[in-house]
Amino acid sequence: MGFANSVLPEGSGKSPAPGRLTSVYSEVQTNRLHHPLPLPSVLRGPFKLLDGPPSSAAGNPDEIAKLFPNMFGQPSAKLVPTGSVPTGLPQGLRIGVVLSGGQAPGGHNVISGIFDYLQERAQRSTVYGFKGGPAGIMKCKYVELTPDFIYPYRNQGGFDMICSGRDKIETPEQFKQAEETAMKLDLDGLLVIGGDDSNTNACLLAENFRQKNMKTRVIGCPKTIDGDLKCKEVPASFGFDTACKIYSEMIGNVMTDARSTGKYYHFVRLMGRAASHITLECALQTHSNIAIIGEEVAAKKETLKNVTDYITDIICKRAKLGYNYGVILIPEGLIDFIPEVQQLIAELNEILAHDVVDKEGLWKKKLQQQSQLLFEFLPQAIQEQLLLERDPHGNVQVAKIETEKMLISMVETELEKRKSEGTYVGHFKGQSHFFGYEGRCGLPTNFDATYCYALGYAAGALLHSGKTGLISSVGNLSAPIDEWTVGGTALTSLMDVERRHGKFKPVIKKAMVELEGAPFRKFASMRDEWALNNRYISPGPIQFIGPGSNNVNHTLLLELGAQA
Amino acid sequence: MGFANSVLPEGSGKSPAPGRLTSVYSEVQTNRLHHPLPLPSVLRGPFKLLDGPPSSAAGNPDEIAKLFPNMFGQPSAKLVPTGSVPTGLPQGLRIGVVLSGGQAPGGHNVISGIFDYLQERAQRSTVYGFKGGPAGIMKCKYVELTPDFIYPYRNQGGFDMICSGRDKIETPEQFKQAEETAMKLDLDGLLVIGGDDSNTNACLLAENFRQKNMKTRVIGCPKTIDGDLKCKEVPASFGFDTACKIYSEMIGNVMTDARSTGKYYHFVRLMGRAASHITLECALQTHSNIAIIGEEVAAKKETLKNVTDYITDIICKRAKLGYNYGVILIPEGLIDFIPEVQQLIAELNEILAHDVVDKEGLWKKKLQQQSQLLFEFLPQAIQEQLLLERDPHGNVQVAKIETEKMLISMVETELEKRKSEGTYVGHFKGQSHFFGYEGRCGLPTNFDATYCYALGYAAGALLHSGKTGLISSVGNLSAPIDEWTVGGTALTSLMDVERRHGKFKPVIKKAMVELEGAPFRKFASMRDEWALNNRYISPGPIQFIGPGSNNVNHTLLLELGAQA
Repeated sequence: MGFANSVLPEGSGKSPAPGRLTSVYSEVQTNRLHHPLPLPSVLRGPFKLLDGPPSSAAGNPDEIAKLFPNMFGQPSAKLVPTGSVPTGLPQGLRIGVVLSGGQAPGGHNVISGIFDYLQERAQRSTVYGFKGGPAGIMKCKYVELTPDFIYPYRNQGGFDMICSGRDKIETPEQFKQAEETAMKLDLDGLLVIGGDDSNTNACLLAENFRQKNMKTRVIGCPKTIDGDLKCKEVPASFGFDTACKIYSEMIGNVMTDARSTGKYYHFVRLMGRAASHITLECALQTHSNIAIIGEEVAAKKETLKNVTDYITDIICKRAKLGYNYGVILIPEGLIDFIPEVQQLIAELNEILAHDVVDKEGLWKKKLQQQSQLLFEFLPQAIQEQLLLERDPHGNVQVAKIETEKMLISMVETELEKRKSEGTYVGHFKGQSHFFGYEGRCGLPTNFDATYCYALGYAAGALLHSGKTGLISSVGNLSAPIDEWTVGGTALTSLMDVERRHGKFKPVIKKAMVELEGAPFRKFASMRDEWALNNRYISPGPIQFIGPGSNNVNHTLLLELGAQA
Repeated sequence: MGFANSVLPEGSGKSPAPGRLTSVYSEVQTNRLHHPLPLPSVLRGPFKLLDGPPSSAAGNPDEIAKLFPNMFGQPSAKLVPTGSVPTGLPQGLRIGVVLSGGQAPGGHNVISGIFDYLQERAQRSTVYGFKGGPAGIMKCKYVELTPDFIYPYRNQGGFDMICSGRDKIETPEQFKQAEETAMKLDLDGLLVIGGDDSNTNACLLAENFRQKNMKTRVIGCPKTIDGDLKCKEVPASFGFDTACKIYSEMIGNVMTDARSTGKYYHFVRLMGRAASHITLECALQTHSNIAIIGEEVAAKKETLKNVTDYITDIICKRAKLGYNYGVILIPEGLIDFIPEVQQLIAELNEILAHDVVDKEGLWKKKLQQQSQLLFEFLPQAIQEQLLLERDPHGNVQVAKIETEKMLISMVETELEKRKSEGTYVGHFKGQSHFFGYEGRCGLPTNFDATYCYALGYAAGALLHSGKTGLISSVGNLSAPIDEWTVGGTALTSLMDVERRHGKFKPVIKKAMVELEGAPFRKFASMRDEWALNNRYISPGPIQFIGPGSNNVNHTLLLELGAQA
């Protein structure tokens, strides 16, 4: 019955990973090493690539064409089974991989996937892991990956095999450094595992290498727990599934606590600064009483007062039903979605840069009337935070505002008011939570583990076939793994331009929660029911074997038209 | 691959629980309903009770004897197998159960256990669930438990079957109310599921009923996630195992994140106001770089500066090794263990009650020198919190201090100092976490589920045999379930007295972390290694089937002399 921790995972005898060498594996971690990673059937036999029609861009195709003269218009590629093993494909490839940006469960499996592809289909290949993100490419800091090095990371969370970083390859000098590294290592290909920015960067690299007549191809891979990098051909970014299930486990526990105790309102802030996919998914998994979706707040041009009133109204209705408890989910980026808050912040930055904040508050008269009202509406602690805490550029630090605590305070004030007016009889105690780091590095779910392995394996196939400027795409994800489709999508086809400093900059548009999409519509159709009648679900801890262990998240299923 | 949520758990057709009726079950929850609950072999066949020698008390036996003239000296009872089914035991018992105090995973299974015992061994029995804790007894608010009512709660987290409460039965009037309820329902017995206070209360009730010549017997059951209700015969309180595993899952994830990112120190505050068992267990499960054990801080009479320096020293050493990240565990009750903080709080309460806090800070001169120094040492935010936030009695709200944030701030200041002195070269970013509510209501582990079921079943056997004033005790827990021992321990044998308001009050002493005990010694022998060399373990999410699913926590195994 004791814990059977392994000091070193099996198979790591010869050249174990320096990070994991000092690590001890739990029984679950060890077991995950042996978890099989089935491939879609098309990746199991001989296959060839079929090109589709020429692609365009998500917006402003003319500008994208100018920015990517070599990449623009590339067709998407699809892998299809073929009768015989294709001949003439090169062997002994030299491939680099890099992890870019924040951690997401499954990153290690993408690397395992491309590594195994090369081992099996392009013998005598070499894989270099660039260390610490794109900076590793620029500084030519890398480690040569071997089966023994990679093995201990199979199906394990984190990015610590080669670590990640947030640098970008942007300036001509930085591109030059990347070229030098590619030449020095004689790279045939590079796999960039990252989010929207990193994949845009991957495409710029691909364009640059091609322009310089270099042989180095670049393929991207969709990573982000926020779930905001996706499109028709790339139905999901990896890590979202695991992160949402970890958060939902915690929310489920807190819900059961709320119902048992009967006296707390839990305000749970969840990751997702730009988009509210995580909040939406967690609401669908747990049936929280309230979930605020930033995209809806923005679309309806709601004010902070509107949001406060919405929450307060439900609390009052619940009190009438005898429920003085509940669970409320809030996306971390909520206040970025509220126009009036953005306006206030802009005015504050201006005032704080030039004026003295006098104790008498005369400075407030410099605020426009709407901003003045909003400022007065904010809890005192938040007012002080806005005035005192600035970033190195002297700007107000919006990201530091603990939205869940701010809302608790505002709801409290509003409830006091209603109590004195006699429209609320109940008791309110708010508890705040922030679930963030806890979900980025968990052991990947079976779905993320398999999906990532297929993404990496597909990236190997694309590079092997000489493709560049594509993002690895695995589709038909609601079907059994066998039937998953595999291919590559032109990165330029996901792009639009933004005007920055008088220039057009290419961007992969973040996929926001669509108010007309199936996940939001499902949520919208249920939320009144969930608000008043406690239809809580406790998903429980992620299971790796047995019931529920192969479930896919609701967002993906609903988007794919399946019944979640 | 879709989620297969059941709208109503099976078997809840006739008289489903009102709480769970409005609930939807996740696949894991549904599956847990069917998880088998094996009984120790002694509970599976015919058994009889063997009484041991007369017992004494944990301290001041003379006073305990005076307080409990009927209960004191009772022998512990042990269940032993017997050849034939004992005859003459009453049937048709009328038994009440009550959940008292904070939630702990497994409470529902205790109720399932006693219910099943009575169904199987005392036919035509009735079980009443008192609602909302001891208040339910006093107000005679109850629900009659039926198989259909109970079924949906089997192996489920929370206390929502009958809910809990923190009231105590203390005054003569309250005892009178309890008597009236017992008479009204014609109760043969009462099972009190609670922590140290609740079990003390259970014994007082047992004494009172006996004194009044009432037939109602009272049995206690050891519950608390904090793990501070235990002794030789009661080796564990239920809920500790599940809670620690949930916290350790999160800590493991945060560790992997720390190692991947390489730039954060995560300060994790964990539940446990009186004792640091949870922090110790989580350190043993995860090998965090630092864990502060309150009992050691108290024993060594450490100051806040000592604790800060201990952490800062390790951070400096790690920086020299190239590690600017780490994970630090802190028990929620830390500052209660630091004598100088207690002194400062006492002085502040005195000063704030009588004096004006002038802006110039002249009031500080009223503090004793040591307290003045400590106050100045505290981060400004904490200083303000101490002065501004008071409870309804005007006292400083120590419980509201976010210890982890306070420590981050103090470590930061100390590191700045060392940086300017040239003794620290590195970068420090603190991230704070509090894991509390997330662990109290999780789905019970296999261990807690089985242990609780046995505790409840044993309580049924004790009441059926006419026992009173005992706590249900199940032992030999590191052996296979089959070999677990079952019995009851005299509650008075766990008691000592405390002097309060000039009177002796009986208390079950909280079991603190013993610095000479095996769990702490193991931790102490490893901590220097864990501090500098990252030997992180990520336990992963609790698994209900497969590898590791039947593991028991380290604390229990080490205390039982097994190798964890």
